[in-house]
Amino acid sequence: MPHILDLDAIRPLLDADRLINEIEAGFALYSEGRVNVPPVGFLHFDDPPGDVHIKYGAITDDDVWVLKVASGFYANPSLGLPPSDGVILIFSQQTGALELVLHDRCWLTDMRTAAAGAVAARHLAPSGVDHIGIIGTGVQARMQLEMLCSVVAAESAIVWGRNPETVREMIEDLTRSEPIAAAGLTIRAAGSVDELAAASRLIVTATSAREPLLRADQIQPGTHITAMGSDDDGKQELDAALLGRADRVVADSVSQCSEYGECVHAISAGLLARNDIVELGAVVRDSALGRTSDDQITIADLTGVAVQDIQIAKMIARAQRER
Amino acid sequence: MPHILDLDAIRPLLDADRLINEIEAGFALYSEGRVNVPPVGFLHFDDPPGDVHIKYGAITDDDVWVLKVASGFYANPSLGLPPSDGVILIFSQQTGALELVLHDRCWLTDMRTAAAGAVAARHLAPSGVDHIGIIGTGVQARMQLEMLCSVVAAESAIVWGRNPETVREMIEDLTRSEPIAAAGLTIRAAGSVDELAAASRLIVTATSAREPLLRADQIQPGTHITAMGSDDDGKQELDAALLGRADRVVADSVSQCSEYGECVHAISAGLLARNDIVELGAVVRDSALGRTSDDQITIADLTGVAVQDIQIAKMIARAQRER
Repeated sequence: MPHILDLDAIRPLLDADRLINEIEAGFALYSEGRVNVPPVGFLHFDDPPGDVHIKYGAITDDDVWVLKVASGFYANPSLGLPPSDGVILIFSQQTGALELVLHDRCWLTDMRTAAAGAVAARHLAPSGVDHIGIIGTGVQARMQLEMLCSVVAAESAIVWGRNPETVREMIEDLTRSEPIAAAGLTIRAAGSVDELAAASRLIVTATSAREPLLRADQIQPGTHITAMGSDDDGKQELDAALLGRADRVVADSVSQCSEYGECVHAISAGLLARNDIVELGAVVRDSALGRTSDDQITIADLTGVAVQDIQIAKMIARAQRER
Repeated sequence: MPHILDLDAIRPLLDADRLINEIEAGFALYSEGRVNVPPVGFLHFDDPPGDVHIKYGAITDDDVWVLKVASGFYANPSLGLPPSDGVILIFSQQTGALELVLHDRCWLTDMRTAAAGAVAARHLAPSGVDHIGIIGTGVQARMQLEMLCSVVAAESAIVWGRNPETVREMIEDLTRSEPIAAAGLTIRAAGSVDELAAASRLIVTATSAREPLLRADQIQPGTHITAMGSDDDGKQELDAALLGRADRVVADSVSQCSEYGECVHAISAGLLARNDIVELGAVVRDSALGRTSDDQITIADLTGVAVQDIQIAKMIARAQRER
């Protein structure tokens, strides 16, 4: 019978530093056309409101294929439950057999999403980032900063969120976080987005904003911005003009980012051509396609690709076998 | 942590007689438009060759939603493994939480498919069927006959298959089967399809034929035929003219049977209009839409609908809770 691992069993099996490398390798495979990612399946519920995403796919000639079910049920917090749940199934590409069930409750999705931000920063941030700016105060905003400690040697981080109390709590929590403490990173609240943008050469937006939070005129030359909040229709974190002004716009998946995410708004406004978007996996393979000087503005638009789920699931399966 | 049940744990939880009623109720809900069944997801592998089908859906205002992964890996038998594998996941419609994993290895798919044949026979077979004709010798052909014992009081069954040795083995196995023995059904081999068609007022085809096995001129008035082998492009068990001659053509899903199955061939040949096909769930709700006299020829074209997976999964979940 295939094993089912719960979150407590999964957490110790994941090595965050190796994860970044595996996600990076996954993007490279994806951009080489070596990953079969069929369209995402959706189910919507009205009462109580809930959304389910079904993502699945396979790397060509790999040992396994992977299916993920991730859900958001928005009334759950009023019942004392987390809003998200998730499970990943790993099947053999040789026999079709179900090999492992990871009942990760979306934690692996959060981790692979944070790791994608680290991959983008590794390849696109300018040299010598002193201050990291984080816009957003949710789980993903926190995980982004923790994961960035592995790839960027900054002195401090600056956090902006709409609710100062939530910002304060986030800073308190993060100060006690192991990767933040190990990196010796100090964290403070930004008085405004203007202040954050003026001070930070690496900015991450991780919000569910439906109106732009960052404008083109706020950004200094030599800044990299990773936008990861927009994963569905109607969401937007960056002003379209900012993508128009950027020297490089990179997307995890050009096909997905042409439908939702940040790029779609700039394409609609005639400020960005689809052909000008470079895929993150292409930058991984050829750094000349990414940042070529420290005074450029670069943007990474991340919407989440099933190859990330495949890569992180394989890591857990391997670690479990090797125990 | 959600339970995972393997096949040994699942088998004793299923009550075959109740299953037929639940599948019948599921078809009625489906034909009332009360089931959300998104398009089937597919993954294909070349080396070794394998196909994966991902079916999922939800009955409106139900407690749960269900996702099924079913695979066929055709080189498995050469490795001493069964060609099919399958797993069904049951999630809450209230919270999105994963509630139960059924690692049924496709047995529940076989059972719900056989139960659909029994539903079709219950509503469409003429009164007084003395002999049941079974065309095909695979797992599904056997299960169809076993399940029919619950709804039809026949004296005997007649089996036809291309390989007489396989027919002999099937008859030997079935004679020892509990439902067949309990019904006192005798089983013999048919010398030809002609002989089978002449003797049987209820015929089931359960083959993977790509050329018609039954012709219009072979069928006696007052016969019901259930065709369930055609579940994909290019498969066909019944001559299109037979559907043209039938008094009633019933499909489990009009939308699916207009794309594959038996109806599609008759529609292409101009022998059947899509509007003339009646959905099985509509017949369940209103018997006047089905057979109205004992000398009519009726046909049921079954391709398999996700509501069957939902219904059988719910039965297992309920039985497991009540243990």
